[in-house]
Amino acid sequence: MKFIYSGSHKLHFPQAEFHRGQMVTPFENPERIDLIIDHLEEVGFTGIKCDDFWDVEPVLKIHSADYLEFLETAWEEWLAAGFKGDLMAGNFPVRRMQQRCPKHIDGKAGFYSSGNDTSINSGTWEAVKTSYMTAKQAQKVVANGDAASLALCRPPGHHASRDLFGGYCFLNNAAVVAQLFIDQGAEKVAILDIDFHHGNGTQDIFYGRGDVLFASLHGQPEDSYPYYSGYTDEAGKMEGEGSNFNYPMPPGTTYSSWAQSLEEAIRQIQKFNSAALIVSLGVDTYKEDPISFFCLETDDYLRCGIQLSKLNLPTVFVLEGGYALEMVGQNVANVLIGFESG
Amino acid sequence: MKFIYSGSHKLHFPQAEFHRGQMVTPFENPERIDLIIDHLEEVGFTGIKCDDFWDVEPVLKIHSADYLEFLETAWEEWLAAGFKGDLMAGNFPVRRMQQRCPKHIDGKAGFYSSGNDTSINSGTWEAVKTSYMTAKQAQKVVANGDAASLALCRPPGHHASRDLFGGYCFLNNAAVVAQLFIDQGAEKVAILDIDFHHGNGTQDIFYGRGDVLFASLHGQPEDSYPYYSGYTDEAGKMEGEGSNFNYPMPPGTTYSSWAQSLEEAIRQIQKFNSAALIVSLGVDTYKEDPISFFCLETDDYLRCGIQLSKLNLPTVFVLEGGYALEMVGQNVANVLIGFESG
Repeated sequence: MKFIYSGSHKLHFPQAEFHRGQMVTPFENPERIDLIIDHLEEVGFTGIKCDDFWDVEPVLKIHSADYLEFLETAWEEWLAAGFKGDLMAGNFPVRRMQQRCPKHIDGKAGFYSSGNDTSINSGTWEAVKTSYMTAKQAQKVVANGDAASLALCRPPGHHASRDLFGGYCFLNNAAVVAQLFIDQGAEKVAILDIDFHHGNGTQDIFYGRGDVLFASLHGQPEDSYPYYSGYTDEAGKMEGEGSNFNYPMPPGTTYSSWAQSLEEAIRQIQKFNSAALIVSLGVDTYKEDPISFFCLETDDYLRCGIQLSKLNLPTVFVLEGGYALEMVGQNVANVLIGFESG
Repeated sequence: MKFIYSGSHKLHFPQAEFHRGQMVTPFENPERIDLIIDHLEEVGFTGIKCDDFWDVEPVLKIHSADYLEFLETAWEEWLAAGFKGDLMAGNFPVRRMQQRCPKHIDGKAGFYSSGNDTSINSGTWEAVKTSYMTAKQAQKVVANGDAASLALCRPPGHHASRDLFGGYCFLNNAAVVAQLFIDQGAEKVAILDIDFHHGNGTQDIFYGRGDVLFASLHGQPEDSYPYYSGYTDEAGKMEGEGSNFNYPMPPGTTYSSWAQSLEEAIRQIQKFNSAALIVSLGVDTYKEDPISFFCLETDDYLRCGIQLSKLNLPTVFVLEGGYALEMVGQNVANVLIGFESG
């Protein structure tokens, strides 16, 4: 299996992250990608440096034009306002408030954001574009005949909705990949999100659509980020009704019960007659992950890969989270190894 | 005019405030009250130490029971979760997200908050209760026959809505005072908010009610906090339609144009046949205020007080913002001096 990567992700380098009342060193950091690349090469996977190009058309089918303009100009506006440090949102248009975008960058930042775990700096937009191009190229590899590929996206994407950044995410790479398959003629595709956190952005994007199934295995929203989505009764609406599946699980979940949810999600995808599979691949389900509460072991990722291969679908893996640095490379690699052996 | 104060506000002592991408020393700090007390006494106003009691009944007419329970238990839950530092919210249930309260304090904090400028520490709930009691006692002074009184509330209140804290506010003291007048037999009362920032919490609380007029003079929402409310077309709904008045003004506004909005608000209050007036008194309209953009001079507050006295209504002043420490005492005092001379 080929994996697509780029060095440009390093242009996004948040200095601090707001976490449980404190400013801390960001969990989502550039080192993650280097560690994954090193390990993938070590175990024999072929890395391809991204040489794809920026094309806004597929992105505009997923994100709103005003949101894209915000992402593109935010840093400049932040500097022009005389602000210091990374751009982070501070106030948010929560319930009963106006959903009108203010003019001032401080208000705009909150309008387009769901929290202040996620900051924007000088190179963020370049990194975000490259992350999307990496996913686009990985999709192309599969569209051209490979059974599977992996996009080493950074920043990740699954918390980004049509017009909101947050949870370290800006553009929803997995959603764009799904859209590309549809645009190229697939009638139906499925996104399976196995990151620890609910893929709230992806769910939101396809909630009213019947051509993209979304299934997510995640920490239950009562106890874990993103907190305000991921319940089992979120089943889609309109044309999308019945094609959204959430599998929230409690703290301490080990592979045996996690795999039951995976089995169930796979059954739904099989029933859906999907032409392709996009896996939002987070390995923050790992027992040592610093911001999650599942208890998967490194060997479990081999088993997970084997299970996924049973779907026998053209598959694009899109990297999401995973913050236990010492094992992030091996855990990602194990999913691919399992997948290829299955 | 008597003013009511308490020393217990000092129990609320946020260590840092998230402001435009950085953690800074809070603008809303305990020193503000000491400076105002000193100056009020210096110019001859009589301070009365709050000896009122906690009574949840009036508060429950303004805030939801679950929100009050959150405020009461938040700090304990934060500590129990093993978190360090002040409680601050990080993620928020913005558009299209679930409006279900999570179980975990980190998610709860975001559910009940509109931003992370506002933190909770060990003594916040005691201070918040005292701030309310201070307002309650000031209302009593006027109900018992005084023409006017001032409640030196801290934390302030006008950004707190039925179930949201934010903008340094937790309980909406002005709203409770209005409710007390109504409960004591007033048919209609008016709240005039002259703080620099839109009184979004107060507006929200009375938006559907016809017995409380709300009028606010403030920095236009396109450019200033709270960003997501304060437009002129927010006119109330249902029974409240036509009794909500917003006067947003641009950066650089001086007293002459500010006073025109005040004149207009006063006309609306006169037409409303209000039995009492509650003034949400912020002096962050002052030209040197560090987080605002109006250009009022210290003498303008005398004129403002004179204008307010023309309404000739029993009046409770409730302190909101004002962060230019060197002049906060004099600016507050001038409003009262003008009011009494008018």
